[in-house]
Amino acid sequence: MGMQKPSIPKGTRDFGRKETAERNYIFDTIKAVFRTFGYVQIETPAMENLSTLLGKYGDEGDKLLFRILNSGDAFAKADLSADGPSITRQVCEKGLRYDLTVPFARYVVQHREEIAMPFRRFQMQPVWRADRPQKGRYREFWQCDADVIGSTSQINELELVQIVDNVFKRLDINVLIKINNRKVLTGLAEIAGFPDKVTDITVAIDKIDKIGLDAVKEEMLQRGLTPEAVEVIEPVLLLSGDTAGKIARMRNLMNGGSASGIVSQTGLKGLDELEELFGFISVAGIRSAVEIDLSLARGLNYYTGAIFEVKACDFPIGSICGGGRYDNLTGIFGMPGLSGVGISFGADRIYDVLKGLDKFPASLGSSTTLLFANMDAAVVPYLIPVAAALRAEGISCEIYPDTGKLKKQFDYAGRQGIPFISIVGSDEMSSNMVNIKNLATGDQRQFDREDVKNIKNFLQN
Amino acid sequence: MGMQKPSIPKGTRDFGRKETAERNYIFDTIKAVFRTFGYVQIETPAMENLSTLLGKYGDEGDKLLFRILNSGDAFAKADLSADGPSITRQVCEKGLRYDLTVPFARYVVQHREEIAMPFRRFQMQPVWRADRPQKGRYREFWQCDADVIGSTSQINELELVQIVDNVFKRLDINVLIKINNRKVLTGLAEIAGFPDKVTDITVAIDKIDKIGLDAVKEEMLQRGLTPEAVEVIEPVLLLSGDTAGKIARMRNLMNGGSASGIVSQTGLKGLDELEELFGFISVAGIRSAVEIDLSLARGLNYYTGAIFEVKACDFPIGSICGGGRYDNLTGIFGMPGLSGVGISFGADRIYDVLKGLDKFPASLGSSTTLLFANMDAAVVPYLIPVAAALRAEGISCEIYPDTGKLKKQFDYAGRQGIPFISIVGSDEMSSNMVNIKNLATGDQRQFDREDVKNIKNFLQN
Repeated sequence: MGMQKPSIPKGTRDFGRKETAERNYIFDTIKAVFRTFGYVQIETPAMENLSTLLGKYGDEGDKLLFRILNSGDAFAKADLSADGPSITRQVCEKGLRYDLTVPFARYVVQHREEIAMPFRRFQMQPVWRADRPQKGRYREFWQCDADVIGSTSQINELELVQIVDNVFKRLDINVLIKINNRKVLTGLAEIAGFPDKVTDITVAIDKIDKIGLDAVKEEMLQRGLTPEAVEVIEPVLLLSGDTAGKIARMRNLMNGGSASGIVSQTGLKGLDELEELFGFISVAGIRSAVEIDLSLARGLNYYTGAIFEVKACDFPIGSICGGGRYDNLTGIFGMPGLSGVGISFGADRIYDVLKGLDKFPASLGSSTTLLFANMDAAVVPYLIPVAAALRAEGISCEIYPDTGKLKKQFDYAGRQGIPFISIVGSDEMSSNMVNIKNLATGDQRQFDREDVKNIKNFLQN
Repeated sequence: MGMQKPSIPKGTRDFGRKETAERNYIFDTIKAVFRTFGYVQIETPAMENLSTLLGKYGDEGDKLLFRILNSGDAFAKADLSADGPSITRQVCEKGLRYDLTVPFARYVVQHREEIAMPFRRFQMQPVWRADRPQKGRYREFWQCDADVIGSTSQINELELVQIVDNVFKRLDINVLIKINNRKVLTGLAEIAGFPDKVTDITVAIDKIDKIGLDAVKEEMLQRGLTPEAVEVIEPVLLLSGDTAGKIARMRNLMNGGSASGIVSQTGLKGLDELEELFGFISVAGIRSAVEIDLSLARGLNYYTGAIFEVKACDFPIGSICGGGRYDNLTGIFGMPGLSGVGISFGADRIYDVLKGLDKFPASLGSSTTLLFANMDAAVVPYLIPVAAALRAEGISCEIYPDTGKLKKQFDYAGRQGIPFISIVGSDEMSSNMVNIKNLATGDQRQFDREDVKNIKNFLQN
């Protein structure tokens, strides 16, 4: 046990007092909003069986799983002449949670008998990915997910939009909520005459903000679409105006009004869903901007209905929240046909936005309201009951533990952001008083030692 | 991706809505108390470098660490002809957090420049140990630790006693707080004439509650003490009466009054500390029973001053909280001479006590206050603004998302423990009213749809 220069694994972070307080502010705000919508919190273990995790995130995802070496002598019975992946399979049975969705699906199937549907659950836990660490990308990060399963009503989609609106209103971040529907994307592929190329089309059009219309068209051609198909899709990418107008023009296209003349029932169903959702939104008092964005595809080939994405209006960063509806969350665990819709808040990006816009409340910087200076050991037993009475009233206070120079104690109050200090000496003790000074204003008062009510008033004003 | 029967690794747990709410009640209570004493929360990563963890918990502890397989092809460059432990060292660089103390020590050294001393920190995070799972022992469990470092004053010990008292008062659990001092144990070994057998003596006397006085004496003899030494120690094990009396009699023994006549300065210093601490306790308004227990040794050879242990008075379970003072927390990381004192709350055992005594608040069972029934899709847009207005007032409510039979919706309210239901039909809509029924009392009222204030009053009374 020699001396070591300590460090933490790359891609992981320590959170100090200030960052933890700021992060809790985000988590607590989101939790409070989830709760007003009747969402209940659950927690799942950090470790899952690899049989639960493998194959759920594609080949790339499998590689990014952190695997736990079996305990005991993991190698005792392993065939070490095999290749690396085979040895890995022999010596690792568990992995760290990669997201909250697969553990949720596993949870629902495992506990199906206990769950009342519709089930509104939220979960806020860290996840781990062996990604290459880079700015803003970590190997340990937190996800905040809310999902409703067991109901196909668009009321659930509305609620998620309301949750987003409420959270960012409380955090004082202006956001734009973009909504699309996967069925409309399917319809688009159908009326373009390439029903099997939904993925190619969505991957291409998802890039329109980054690479522009011409490059998207070029990419669609490279992905095997014909110029005629691209001609069908182009007007959709150029749609502008209000939501009702966009839906009406899309309905016309899906109804045989495109250059191909093909009708897509799936596309029409998606438009019905969008129309119902926007009808609900119009009466819900949403304060954020909400718009339909038919280019929104969110990489994942996973959603089957609504697709959401949220962007901060006043800060340049990617999506800070997103989600959508899926129709087969639990099918992989043998429980098919369960529809759900969910969203996930990106805590790290929201943190960056609040930092960038300087929107964290100033009060998060300080944890202690009042410091009792300790000039003389004799004063300590005199102060202990005062501090105890204030704490019983919810006032955070400290007695400086070591008797010593006042300057050091003032420095401590300054570094900790403590706004009030009490300096009690023999004069105060003989008259049963305490002195309290507001360090910001210089205002100083004397109180009877038992007068907790007035001390509290002074500290809270 | 065939069907699988999902499960979780042995020794880990899912926490459903009720357990999570109950666990949050414990964590939130402890946090709120920590905060009134000016303790600040920090968080450290789940994964630490094995160089940080190894050698800190003894050989047994090293075996219980969960190790993370290096990412990429971990075995590509490994010498697989070596033995198991050697292969393990080659392919694993990281491990899961085993406790919160070593990561805290690592944190303090790594961030020494940013930390103002004295540093009062708390931390509530899961830890992982590859222990054999059994009833009440898990491979993933939560620790709630508070420590003050950078101060040797007994005010810190007092604060921890106050924190314990406050937490269990708020949780409505009667506790006995037992206090000892490691220096007194050292003194005991000195006056017994075996200063190098402190560990043997403390390990033996720590068992007195379990095996009784005679067996403890026998064990001390087996551990190499002489009958004369045991004769010196025996009166200490038989001490009874009030704290002042116990300290006075111990002071006499440490001052040359034992059968050996040896004086122990270390023992006397320990008694000074105990006396100062109990002096503070006497003026602090502590409501729990606090007693000196000279047989309290808490296995760990780690403490150098105060030792704490907390037991539930009305429920048979081991210690539910414990801690003590240590003088060299950060020495292993190259920063010697930093003294600290801390406690750790055992969340799982506190949970068991609250369950066993039926002391969880009944309100934790329900997350939603009001369910709006959904008998007819036409009513949904009428209800959306009412629900939104109530949520803005902090009232948790849900609109049942799928139109359907009232019985199913009542069943849902029952299973979820929702206390109020609103059934709005065309009559209410035409008069701009909402009906709300208290399901427990049967009390039913009508309100104007915009009359949020009176609806809120009805729901909260």
